Amino acid sequence: MNETYVVVDKEIKLNKPVLIEGLPGLGLVGKIAADYMISELGAKKFAEMYSPFFPPQVVIQPDGTVRMMRNEFYYWHNDDKSKSDLLFIVGDHQGNTPESHYELVSKTVDVAEMLGAKLVYTLGGFATGRLPKKPKVFGAVTDKSMIRSLKSAGVSFERSGVAIVGAAGLLLGESSLRGMKGACLMGETHGQIIDARAAKSVLLVLQNLLDLKLDLGGLEKRAKETEQMIERAEKAKEQQQVLQSLPAPGEGPTYIR
Amino acid sequence: MNETYVVVDKEIKLNKPVLIEGLPGLGLVGKIAADYMISELGAKKFAEMYSPFFPPQVVIQPDGTVRMMRNEFYYWHNDDKSKSDLLFIVGDHQGNTPESHYELVSKTVDVAEMLGAKLVYTLGGFATGRLPKKPKVFGAVTDKSMIRSLKSAGVSFERSGVAIVGAAGLLLGESSLRGMKGACLMGETHGQIIDARAAKSVLLVLQNLLDLKLDLGGLEKRAKETEQMIERAEKAKEQQQVLQSLPAPGEGPTYIR
Amino acid sequence: MNETYVVVDKEIKLNKPVLIEGLPGLGLVGKIAADYMISELGAKKFAEMYSPFFPPQVVIQPDGTVRMMRNEFYYWHNDDKSKSDLLFIVGDHQGNTPESHYELVSKTVDVAEMLGAKLVYTLGGFATGRLPKKPKVFGAVTDKSMIRSLKSAGVSFERSGVAIVGAAGLLLGESSLRGMKGACLMGETHGQIIDARAAKSVLLVLQNLLDLKLDLGGLEKRAKETEQMIERAEKAKEQQQVLQSLPAPGEGPTYIR
Amino acid sequence: MNETYVVVDKEIKLNKPVLIEGLPGLGLVGKIAADYMISELGAKKFAEMYSPFFPPQVVIQPDGTVRMMRNEFYYWHNDDKSKSDLLFIVGDHQGNTPESHYELVSKTVDVAEMLGAKLVYTLGGFATGRLPKKPKVFGAVTDKSMIRSLKSAGVSFERSGVAIVGAAGLLLGESSLRGMKGACLMGETHGQIIDARAAKSVLLVLQNLLDLKLDLGGLEKRAKETEQMIERAEKAKEQQQVLQSLPAPGEGPTYIR
Repeated sequence: MNETYVVVDKEIKLNKPVLIEGLPGLGLVGKIAADYMISELGAKKFAEMYSPFFPPQVVIQPDGTVRMMRNEFYYWHNDDKSKSDLLFIVGDHQGNTPESHYELVSKTVDVAEMLGAKLVYTLGGFATGRLPKKPKVFGAVTDKSMIRSLKSAGVSFERSGVAIVGAAGLLLGESSLRGMKGACLMGETHGQIIDARAAKSVLLVLQNLLDLKLDLGGLEKRAKETEQMIERAEKAKEQQQVLQSLPAPGEGPTYIR
Repeated sequence: MNETYVVVDKEIKLNKPVLIEGLPGLGLVGKIAADYMISELGAKKFAEMYSPFFPPQVVIQPDGTVRMMRNEFYYWHNDDKSKSDLLFIVGDHQGNTPESHYELVSKTVDVAEMLGAKLVYTLGGFATGRLPKKPKVFGAVTDKSMIRSLKSAGVSFERSGVAIVGAAGLLLGESSLRGMKGACLMGETHGQIIDARAAKSVLLVLQNLLDLKLDLGGLEKRAKETEQMIERAEKAKEQQQVLQSLPAPGEGPTYIR
Repeated sequence: MNETYVVVDKEIKLNKPVLIEGLPGLGLVGKIAADYMISELGAKKFAEMYSPFFPPQVVIQPDGTVRMMRNEFYYWHNDDKSKSDLLFIVGDHQGNTPESHYELVSKTVDVAEMLGAKLVYTLGGFATGRLPKKPKVFGAVTDKSMIRSLKSAGVSFERSGVAIVGAAGLLLGESSLRGMKGACLMGETHGQIIDARAAKSVLLVLQNLLDLKLDLGGLEKRAKETEQMIERAEKAKEQQQVLQSLPAPGEGPTYIR
Repeated sequence: MNETYVVVDKEIKLNKPVLIEGLPGLGLVGKIAADYMISELGAKKFAEMYSPFFPPQVVIQPDGTVRMMRNEFYYWHNDDKSKSDLLFIVGDHQGNTPESHYELVSKTVDVAEMLGAKLVYTLGGFATGRLPKKPKVFGAVTDKSMIRSLKSAGVSFERSGVAIVGAAGLLLGESSLRGMKGACLMGETHGQIIDARAAKSVLLVLQNLLDLKLDLGGLEKRAKETEQMIERAEKAKEQQQVLQSLPAPGEGPTYIR
């Protein structure tokens, strides 16, 4: 393998598919959201993407076998034929150089185009340095006409002049150049923490847009666990500070002497 | 998209076109000059260049839509058919590696060649660490025969042994290899400051060379604003120094004690 | 030469060949093991691989001639025709960028495939920061069915979630994508020391798997020399510390004064 | 231009040509030697090599015109038809990445091969940290049979295990792969100083090998100028040290007080 290529395990047909992207990025927000959705819907894998732009390594899995770095395509048939089927791109990596980002995105849109997708949602995080109880979802679109319905679904459009770096941004640009529409949904996130709550916020919006109902309880649970971990870490830090301000054992406070 | 390509929105024909380059560089001199000229003349965009060598990102615009990184081609029809039409290359980037610089320049000259350009002016800054009231314009040419007319137009040729890095230089080299002539016009600039005055100097020369008359008042205004900002910054700095040389409150000067 | 290519010095045919990889890596474990095996078996070189991804240099050899950086293919005919012939890839380098790793591995598997290999063993080190008398051999496979026989041959499968970086890992991934099976054998090693003992451990396992009998005395000797060197270094260090804890000449211990 | 290419200004035929390489490297020894030889012999330029692997810039020349980065081919017809014509590759750069080194060398050998060269001499420096009056010339060859005649010409073969990095090394490797013979001649040099004396040593050997007689007075003169500069710098340094050990003006030596 010395170029990026897609291995198709199963030939599929999709009804008005919508492409959903959730590759690793800020706070893993997009990845957590898309992986969770795949798991909740029971979406099926049908293709894998390999690339010399991924890290040159394999990973040992719990059963002792190895697997290469890869991205994966999943699909989901909507029982309601009046609504859209879904197509997912998820996986290990976004690329390591400008050129590789462009190449991986280009190959992804090739697949989406071939399967007839006309609409793309890319999922990601938007770092604000805060960890709010109810993270906002910031949006950006390829087409002004999409803004009204996104606002109705709870998306905020107060940020401009900002760059969306990587697949979440480039996929919109590339799709647009090929006549597709798209929106990026970015959950407000701290930036340094793996953030299931921001992923939940993104999915709350996305299920509105797709007219789906997902059980998001699993994400809520995961978000609470993260919160408790952070609280414990902060308490430990406070106690540490209290201890440091006490005199060392066997020594009175220096200002009494 | 996994190679550099040009999207042509509108087929055009040009009369003896002259290519003018103003991509982001030192002091943004070339970019400011070319963008200003496009705006003053009312030149029209007819093509865009996309490349995997640009940063892998999109930018959110004030209206909520995204756009990819790109360079843009504009054209302007000269009402006086005895004079040259103009062709502009402006935009976001010059390239991030040696190879990408060469590639982007090569594609740019492809377009200029196809439209019949025989002459190229590249616009840029020349850092001297000074901010003169009347910045000089330094020149370099592909052909000795051009020097006399450039000198008449106010260009100085006192610098040699200097490298012109990036598009402003490479475009000359590449054009020359393809049988076109060209000159680089570099406005004297500080190097650390966005410099509308140097851009104005460059345009004063360029309008002579092209036998055009541009209203450069907008650039003069912008240059004055920059000046005032710098003056305020310097005053603030002086006051700061005065304050620092005063004794700290409640303390006489140390040399009295 | 501006692409990777293989120069075949001699056309060969192999009987059910097994590919064995031993390129430079952690502790040089894989390289030492494969080079030793080639030398013990008297395997013959039949092809060389050159690549623009190798360092751009030649090395002056003891006889005054130069040679380019390269990897080398060796073969060994098994006298027992019921058993496998062997094919080796050894040499100078693994690649310097992600893309080059993928390319060199791809060309290697091309050769193995052409010669009919269905099985690959890649040899390497696994850094634990320790230098045990009997280094373990950790394994990873492309196919769960291989685990039982590897365990019987003395391989441990207690590590998962770990990445195998470079040729030892990628060769498994690439082989697997082309329908071949493979295992990686990693000798436990310190990580900072050239480790013949770990190489011996790997070969103890590999000769079981291949039903071969190698004289590993040479590796044992080399391992002992390394040990003695380390012991001497540690003694020197201890003496150094003793000296440093003594009072400087002409000075009593500070706590007596 | 988005690939390396050679512009041939003049079609030439050469009689048993020998390729001589002198691109910029250690102490500029190879470059100085080859440029001097071209100038002394009155060799003529017939081709230029351009490449996207060169720095993306042009240089302003004293006459105000610009030129791109490039390497250059020169030829020289030997009046004595029983002896070899010469072919030179000299110029600005060797390449900036491993791949580019390989590519530029490959294109160079293409030209040499096309013109019938069977023998290559690459010229360079060998850093020893010393600046001897009579620098040695170290050698390396593609073919053991060449060593005897090189030794007779004054070449030393006492260095092995050393890498020759860049064009001076790779050209030998590449030539050898294509059935040509070659030797590298490396003048002993300090490593940090532009060294005309080492270049002279290399040419003393090379004129023996080629049975030529060059006037090397110009190199001797240049070497002496460098020497005087170094002497002045060292004297200045000594005086500086003397001054620093004297008491500051108006202050007696501190040990008298």
